[in-house]
Amino acid sequence: MTGSENAVLEALDADRDGALGRLFELLRIPSISTDPAHAADCRKAAEWCVAALREIGFDAQLHETAGQPMVVGHMPPLGTEGAGGGGAPLRVLFYGHYDVQPPDPLELWKTPPFEPRMGEDPRHGPIILARGASDDKGQLMTFLEACRAWARTAGGPPVAVTVLLEGEEESGSPSLGPFLDAHGELLKADIALVCDTGQWDARTPAITTMLRGLAFCEIAVRGPARDLHSGMYGGPAVNPIHGLARILAALHDEAGRVRIPGFYDGVESPTEAQRAQWAALDFDEAEFLTDVGLSAPAGERGYSVLEQLWARPTAEVNGICGGYQGPGTKTVIPSEARAKLSFRLVPGQDPERVLAGFRAFAQAHAPDGCTIAFEGEGGSPAVGFDTESASMRAATAALEAEWGRSPVMMGCGGSIPIVEAFKTVLGMETLLIGFALDDDRIHSPNEKYNLSSFTRGARSWVRILARLAEAQAQRA
Amino acid sequence: MTGSENAVLEALDADRDGALGRLFELLRIPSISTDPAHAADCRKAAEWCVAALREIGFDAQLHETAGQPMVVGHMPPLGTEGAGGGGAPLRVLFYGHYDVQPPDPLELWKTPPFEPRMGEDPRHGPIILARGASDDKGQLMTFLEACRAWARTAGGPPVAVTVLLEGEEESGSPSLGPFLDAHGELLKADIALVCDTGQWDARTPAITTMLRGLAFCEIAVRGPARDLHSGMYGGPAVNPIHGLARILAALHDEAGRVRIPGFYDGVESPTEAQRAQWAALDFDEAEFLTDVGLSAPAGERGYSVLEQLWARPTAEVNGICGGYQGPGTKTVIPSEARAKLSFRLVPGQDPERVLAGFRAFAQAHAPDGCTIAFEGEGGSPAVGFDTESASMRAATAALEAEWGRSPVMMGCGGSIPIVEAFKTVLGMETLLIGFALDDDRIHSPNEKYNLSSFTRGARSWVRILARLAEAQAQRA
Repeated sequence: MTGSENAVLEALDADRDGALGRLFELLRIPSISTDPAHAADCRKAAEWCVAALREIGFDAQLHETAGQPMVVGHMPPLGTEGAGGGGAPLRVLFYGHYDVQPPDPLELWKTPPFEPRMGEDPRHGPIILARGASDDKGQLMTFLEACRAWARTAGGPPVAVTVLLEGEEESGSPSLGPFLDAHGELLKADIALVCDTGQWDARTPAITTMLRGLAFCEIAVRGPARDLHSGMYGGPAVNPIHGLARILAALHDEAGRVRIPGFYDGVESPTEAQRAQWAALDFDEAEFLTDVGLSAPAGERGYSVLEQLWARPTAEVNGICGGYQGPGTKTVIPSEARAKLSFRLVPGQDPERVLAGFRAFAQAHAPDGCTIAFEGEGGSPAVGFDTESASMRAATAALEAEWGRSPVMMGCGGSIPIVEAFKTVLGMETLLIGFALDDDRIHSPNEKYNLSSFTRGARSWVRILARLAEAQAQRA
Repeated sequence: MTGSENAVLEALDADRDGALGRLFELLRIPSISTDPAHAADCRKAAEWCVAALREIGFDAQLHETAGQPMVVGHMPPLGTEGAGGGGAPLRVLFYGHYDVQPPDPLELWKTPPFEPRMGEDPRHGPIILARGASDDKGQLMTFLEACRAWARTAGGPPVAVTVLLEGEEESGSPSLGPFLDAHGELLKADIALVCDTGQWDARTPAITTMLRGLAFCEIAVRGPARDLHSGMYGGPAVNPIHGLARILAALHDEAGRVRIPGFYDGVESPTEAQRAQWAALDFDEAEFLTDVGLSAPAGERGYSVLEQLWARPTAEVNGICGGYQGPGTKTVIPSEARAKLSFRLVPGQDPERVLAGFRAFAQAHAPDGCTIAFEGEGGSPAVGFDTESASMRAATAALEAEWGRSPVMMGCGGSIPIVEAFKTVLGMETLLIGFALDDDRIHSPNEKYNLSSFTRGARSWVRILARLAEAQAQRA
């Protein structure tokens, strides 16, 4: 196997300019899914992906949806002479998206967003500059180039590969759920590979092993039937802004812990090994905060910033409004005040139970004379992966071989809905491996992707596919 | 004096239809000061007032301002044969406004707002229906008709009368301050009469003896330098909405008292006589609250609703905003949250001191990592009048004579800025006497003025002018 893997890596390195040329072709298509004016561009990008997959050797097709089309391609594993060895070959489903964020504000771009070019970053060296260079065209092309090198060198990848590329990730993936429901058989695999994540730093790879979940809702506190004149009614009339402030102020104790009864029920602590690995990382808490204008860490006392982000749940008010908000003064007692809340969840927490707890808590803290209503509730649980699984160990070994250091087993403070969908709809675990960096400026002007992210990312996938095939062979 | 007063009252009664006709003429002019499209109508109303004053016998003129014109008229007291008696005659300055609120929403009017007509109210009997019927055209015409009857019957009013009518009361009186500053000599008098207030009920007159003051400001609580993703930063990043909620929630204690140190310093309690009179009023607290959809009284425990409204200060949040307020969910930690606050003040409180106290209080309750800024501060102190002054006793006697019952010495929860201006700029006390009722629907569709408010209001002014002249004669 190693011999074949080395040949594939050599082929990949030799065709670096070809790979960059292909990536640039895709980056030139302004496939902005949130802008209806770019619908034709999204289709063009989808068609480009179908053609690229077919050129590699995939059986690829474009599938219509209510929105942008889906691209699905299949490629069988190389024959019995390959890594598949004895039993059934491993099947992987790779997910990426061909749509990009709008480039606004355009005037802040130093070079046109859809005219990709190489640049030089003082810290990172050569970089690829374009909208989508990192998110997600650059990332998805690392996987496609790995498949191309396998196909050209060994006749096919060492595992059965299905590729799923959607065109609505930047607009909330409205067609993805229905597509998974309708075409589950087309996508069935043993494990999913999702590349929408990052490295720890430019020299250190990472595997994301935990994603926080989310529960959200809106609360309306109502007092008088209409806005009242604060001169004519101020005093005896209850003010719903005061009531809402009381509820929100009660959410956290002085140590930053959430005071909703039962909120922490079932919350699992990170393992000692994880805590030790995280503590050993060169994470600069002060820099992390200073970068966004914060002077002091808030949040739960007794936890590091990384622990708070990766392994602790939160309660946040994301928006609040009530009464007069225009210029100057208007002395009203408003009839209503509203707030939007969300709770970041960790494994062990149930979104519905968290929201029920909040509702009861809010009712208990509401002042007399106010009524409370809850709206727009929803959420999804956190996802935690077994860091000791065979596929996790295979990916770890592959990344160590490529980067010369162990990948960081990271948490991720946010959610990636596709991971939850793969688990619940298709019954698959996911390996979350990507090569983006925090300073890639995704969703912002002057997005970039390190050339090394691109080249070593593709090399990493060559190795990961090989190691996954080996692990499957050993299991068989 | 009484003989002449009775003759004036008889003349007034005899010309009731003439008085109504004149009021209807004024009501037909849509003098909406907030709408630039009605600037010519405002001028027309001002010119109508000048003509009406001249017809009565006033030396009246229109004065240009940066906005709508001012109307000022002077009429000397009737000669030595009149009430003026020995010494210098009393000089009164009557203030009213000829502009009206916009009639929107038009579709809710049962009859066109600028086509005045008589109607029948099941509770009150005959009513005058039109925009401005009560606020303030009906009210100001009660005074003008009283002057007309005095002039026709006795050759002039028993005191020297200056009338000041402005056309921007409904748009914040921007020209009034500059006009008082520039033309103070023109308006100099011994006492001001302001009719922009109400009776206690349809059968009981009132004198407003206390107006709450106001202090207001805006507070901005700032956290991160920009809006943050609550997944990527939630936990360690301070949330300014939480900080603002803490400050606002701390404003009141469990008994509804304001917790700002020093807030109640200098606050005077109402006299025992006032409390006794208020307690004896047939004020239905439950009905007052139910009318605006409130089930329970809030505010300071230990005070009646009337005491809270008329004699106790408040702290209110009039508006709040921060973060995402659109539809659905956006999981941001906002960089800023803002609230507009106002404090209703009672005599003894200084607006500047109250705002300084709030600033210190907010700083003390702000969480670490947040900065606080204050903007848009302003205010004016409460006004309290001596209920035992000679003019107050004269007005009380006049109202008793007309209505057969003592006027209620009311407080007023709101402010009337002109009263403060008369005191500070012209050095005059004000008698606040008006004949509006709570159900006159001022600023709302289907505004009305009871016919009895109009006729007995005019009769009340005839008597008040006579009694004021008598009191002056006794003093001389």
